[in-house]
Amino acid sequence: MSITDKSTDSTTDIRADWIAVDWGTSRMRAWAMSADGKVLASTSSDKGMGSLAPDQFEDALLADIGQWLSPGQRTRVVACGMVGARQGWVDVPYKAVPCAPAGQLMAAPVTDAHIDVRLCPGLKQLAPADVMRGEETQVAGLLAARPGFTGVVCLPGTHSKWVRVQDGQITAFQTFMTGELYALLAEKSVLRHSIAPHGWDAPAFAAAIETAVDTPAAVSARLFSLRAEALLADLAPETARARLSGYLIGLELAAARPYWGGQPVAIIGATALGQHYATALQLLAARSEIHDGEALTLQGLHAAYQQLSGD
Amino acid sequence: MSITDKSTDSTTDIRADWIAVDWGTSRMRAWAMSADGKVLASTSSDKGMGSLAPDQFEDALLADIGQWLSPGQRTRVVACGMVGARQGWVDVPYKAVPCAPAGQLMAAPVTDAHIDVRLCPGLKQLAPADVMRGEETQVAGLLAARPGFTGVVCLPGTHSKWVRVQDGQITAFQTFMTGELYALLAEKSVLRHSIAPHGWDAPAFAAAIETAVDTPAAVSARLFSLRAEALLADLAPETARARLSGYLIGLELAAARPYWGGQPVAIIGATALGQHYATALQLLAARSEIHDGEALTLQGLHAAYQQLSGD
Repeated sequence: MSITDKSTDSTTDIRADWIAVDWGTSRMRAWAMSADGKVLASTSSDKGMGSLAPDQFEDALLADIGQWLSPGQRTRVVACGMVGARQGWVDVPYKAVPCAPAGQLMAAPVTDAHIDVRLCPGLKQLAPADVMRGEETQVAGLLAARPGFTGVVCLPGTHSKWVRVQDGQITAFQTFMTGELYALLAEKSVLRHSIAPHGWDAPAFAAAIETAVDTPAAVSARLFSLRAEALLADLAPETARARLSGYLIGLELAAARPYWGGQPVAIIGATALGQHYATALQLLAARSEIHDGEALTLQGLHAAYQQLSGD
Repeated sequence: MSITDKSTDSTTDIRADWIAVDWGTSRMRAWAMSADGKVLASTSSDKGMGSLAPDQFEDALLADIGQWLSPGQRTRVVACGMVGARQGWVDVPYKAVPCAPAGQLMAAPVTDAHIDVRLCPGLKQLAPADVMRGEETQVAGLLAARPGFTGVVCLPGTHSKWVRVQDGQITAFQTFMTGELYALLAEKSVLRHSIAPHGWDAPAFAAAIETAVDTPAAVSARLFSLRAEALLADLAPETARARLSGYLIGLELAAARPYWGGQPVAIIGATALGQHYATALQLLAARSEIHDGEALTLQGLHAAYQQLSGD
């Protein structure tokens, strides 16, 4: 398995006080950390949960973080994300909302005496049924950074999440398949012939957001039009891209109105996608502010590490 | 290229007066016909437009229908579908609606003196932009069978079409990507773990139709719930299947209300899918009747053949 973008600052003379890991379905990222939460080094690989059997996680981890371990000492590793799913390293039971985003960590079985691995639990909501694994740690990071935060958090992505936070607890959340739908339509459907991989058209995005929010059912009718307009009227692929994005994000915003209506939104993701959500919310006269996702993941993992150290 | 379901009645002693062909993106079906429109034999192969270069169509056709040709004579072949697309045998320009569903056929270039191949034009609509290739021939077949038909036609499928017919003309139509969306979500998305390939749950389908028609935006919020309910509450995969189908067909019906509202619908497709649309329309207090798609394709191609013979 190839390591595609191993960071250049992962030198062999760094010793971590503890190690933070964000282990998702398709990627694993790890950071050598100081006790007070500073990043000493980082690494990233495509050894995601989806490509590993339960007995392969330890070796995969050691291959990437081994150089940060201290001889004759056990280093704590705190990991969040799909690594704790049923198909992951070990099945960490979900905590049910309402609850604090950070929960009791669960030890993963290891054979190497140099590591002590603890996994963050994901969250579940029984009605409407919903689950998250990883995003709760970013919300925990937001609460660590802003202890009094009460409001709504939006985490755009493959499976976007809207999260209601009150008095330090997550009270409700809702997942939308917007990112996955976009990827399927743009790359696998008949629309793939008409959608540019890059480029943007801001007015087209704005118009599509308004169409979708005003008349959500229209989205279903507008999708094929992107293909037909490309055939009949040479619709620019960049315009089609922005419009598809606007239709799908708009459909999400139409359904998520109970979340963002009337209160400011903390968007987690200082990315182009996060900016698109901010732009869309602005069009709907809703205020939002963008937070860096990686920074919040690290703050959330650091809070979990501190909780562990206080045990 | 393999022929997967060549019909057993394609014997060598059959001579066609003319040959009907329905040539789509993924399949080619051909029928040996009598002059008065009776089926003498049929064949089917996976040599769809999508797998052929322009100069491969003639050989692909002759391989399948050669046994029906008469020595020393040129047999007419009338074909509809994606064979006339830009990437097909020859690019047959779209006719613009409003117009009759049947139009001037275009000859395809051939080298073999035993065939004379004519392709049906597809239809286009400029605003909202839309196109069809193949379905117009089924609507022509419906008009051939019921010359006075005025009303709405629904053609469920990968790209479902809603068509308004008045005084022998198609006045407007609208394409929905419902079937393709279903296939992408059920087979390629995270929902694939939770959706059965077969089975059904009629009450779950009905409830999903009502949800989607009443609150179209909710569909966007409900999709991931299928996965979450499977994880948290062992949702039956057959129920998830019916619910996903209901959400997507419901979203289509919500947007297609200007078509089916207040008038009976002719559904083309005597299939399980056609029946699901009829059930959904009944739930919405709309009347519909189901017509066999293959029979209407043949009636439409026969009408085109007769028009040709009258030239």
